[in-house]
Amino acid sequence: MSDPAGRSEATRGMDTVGIDPSDWFCPLPLRETKRIVLGHGGGGILSEELIENLFLPAFGSAGGPSRDSAVLAVDGGRIALTTDSYVVNPLFFPGGNIGDLAVNGTVNDLACSGAQPIGLTAGFILEEGLEVEVLGVIAQTMGKAAAEAGVGIVTGDTKVVGRGSADGLFINTAGVGVVPDGVRIGPELARPGDHVIVSGNIGEHGVAIMSVREGIDFGTTVTTDSAPLHQLVAAMLAAVPDPGAVHVLRDPTRGGLVASAVEIARTAGVGVELDEQRIPVPDTVASACSFLGLDPLQVANEGKLVAFVDPAHSDAVLAAMRSRPEGAGAVVIGRAVEEHPGMVVGRTPFGTTRVIERELGEQLPRIC
Amino acid sequence: MSDPAGRSEATRGMDTVGIDPSDWFCPLPLRETKRIVLGHGGGGILSEELIENLFLPAFGSAGGPSRDSAVLAVDGGRIALTTDSYVVNPLFFPGGNIGDLAVNGTVNDLACSGAQPIGLTAGFILEEGLEVEVLGVIAQTMGKAAAEAGVGIVTGDTKVVGRGSADGLFINTAGVGVVPDGVRIGPELARPGDHVIVSGNIGEHGVAIMSVREGIDFGTTVTTDSAPLHQLVAAMLAAVPDPGAVHVLRDPTRGGLVASAVEIARTAGVGVELDEQRIPVPDTVASACSFLGLDPLQVANEGKLVAFVDPAHSDAVLAAMRSRPEGAGAVVIGRAVEEHPGMVVGRTPFGTTRVIERELGEQLPRIC
Repeated sequence: MSDPAGRSEATRGMDTVGIDPSDWFCPLPLRETKRIVLGHGGGGILSEELIENLFLPAFGSAGGPSRDSAVLAVDGGRIALTTDSYVVNPLFFPGGNIGDLAVNGTVNDLACSGAQPIGLTAGFILEEGLEVEVLGVIAQTMGKAAAEAGVGIVTGDTKVVGRGSADGLFINTAGVGVVPDGVRIGPELARPGDHVIVSGNIGEHGVAIMSVREGIDFGTTVTTDSAPLHQLVAAMLAAVPDPGAVHVLRDPTRGGLVASAVEIARTAGVGVELDEQRIPVPDTVASACSFLGLDPLQVANEGKLVAFVDPAHSDAVLAAMRSRPEGAGAVVIGRAVEEHPGMVVGRTPFGTTRVIERELGEQLPRIC
Repeated sequence: MSDPAGRSEATRGMDTVGIDPSDWFCPLPLRETKRIVLGHGGGGILSEELIENLFLPAFGSAGGPSRDSAVLAVDGGRIALTTDSYVVNPLFFPGGNIGDLAVNGTVNDLACSGAQPIGLTAGFILEEGLEVEVLGVIAQTMGKAAAEAGVGIVTGDTKVVGRGSADGLFINTAGVGVVPDGVRIGPELARPGDHVIVSGNIGEHGVAIMSVREGIDFGTTVTTDSAPLHQLVAAMLAAVPDPGAVHVLRDPTRGGLVASAVEIARTAGVGVELDEQRIPVPDTVASACSFLGLDPLQVANEGKLVAFVDPAHSDAVLAAMRSRPEGAGAVVIGRAVEEHPGMVVGRTPFGTTRVIERELGEQLPRIC
């Protein structure tokens, strides 16, 4: 139903702060989409399109939300700031719940900008009728995860919406961390020659969620890998003479390893070559993904990182990673190259290569 | 439906991270409540109970979410960190929309800890099917509000949930600000003798929302007072020889002036005496509240602050406030007293006094 000016029902009365909807312009193809679909939250091509064509123009030039963390100057030092909302369904799954996910996920976004976390916030949106006990256990899990990560949940907010206006419980965590001197990490800093390191087995978080959501028994229970990574990052940075030798860090959550690799390749303008045989995919994850029709390289992780490291120092970084439990399974899985900039290529077990592209939307909605 | 261990349906499988629900203890009367009600998000007594009996024990001692902002030490300086989720219904209302509310609200939480904002985050939870144009206009409003406040939206996150799992659009904004040297502001710092100042007309935001939600025409349109207050605060602090003369700042959002006054009285252990005749309630707000059965002193504001100031300096602070548009209507409305600690008393136009108590829950759900 449209009004005489051709506006949809929902946009009437929108010119409330001097912004006329007819002034609002969004490049194709987003405008053609007209409505938000699940894929806009999937960390793939549609997510990128929403950020680049809608949020960045709206928010202006100051950094913008294209990265997981922003780095700000404060009193001669630097702090990192990040935010993530958690809408995982179900709330409880093998190895964790939405609470530790919300703490570890934000700690890891800070860690991947090289920062050590100093404070987290917790914003809750609760659906009327939620059991208080459910909230209590989730809050306690958050407290436990924060204590294990050595960071406080220092402020919070709670909103309640009527039945049917939310799905049980959503959590937003934002975090602040301090970036040590000399640390300079960002997806634009990948260089040809860099070794690509992954900190351990991939695909576990996504499969853990899907196994409970779909009620599928794969014989062995796959549990989430949810874990804080800031101490692993500190160990990596301490292992090199100059912390600048660690060029890029990324936690491959939504969209998995592929989304992270493609984003880095595109941002830095380098090619990425992955040796698929070396990518550590547990048998349980591989067989579950095969059953569910998923690509394990595109399944979310919540306790892993991908690093692009100066090849002269990758042995030292690898050794430091392996000395810690959360990095025990670290391996070099590929390298950055000058060829095919912006593109990720996989070398298959048969010696052939293939181009690896992201999903348009997401394989698995509400995975975190 | 309960399982053999007596657990409810929702709590099964909760012992996923070593937290057994039977270990979770929550003091009465919260545990008796069993389920979350709208009032738990209302900023009144039920909200306080949730924070004190559930969140603070779960999150441990490190500050905890009892204040709107936390102050953290960084490199010899201090930063303030805050978070708020916005679930206002409807998304668009006279004078604003959820976007400028989300920016100004977080700027104001920082301002009321004496901080000048340096960066905001934006976390979106979108319902599948939301019109892209609606999101575009709201994002643009956020960008405009942030530019007007002189602060960048520096990082963000977007999640999408299926139809019926959220109500159009929720926004979380977190913010970081720098606390200048010498500033020491907090609800525990109110002292007997302090003058209580309000920066202008109260009740406008809540009435603006209710007028569209209820479809009521009050003759004159009441528009939201949504505005950033950090420059007003900077002017107040600059007007006194020592910024320590400004003891408490608070933006009276959910629960209105009463919730703020009661919280300060209880935290500082002082009595508060308000001269009800001096509280600036516009006629339009008074008549709308009378029609709707609301107490204007308990209706949300989004562009006002309450200050407790050393009486020796309140004239200077008042003059500085009045020199700015957002403080043009500033007046002294009462004082802190030694009598009746923790209690707020109103002096009525008839010369009598009455005890002013908060609501149990909230008068107006989803007002911000």
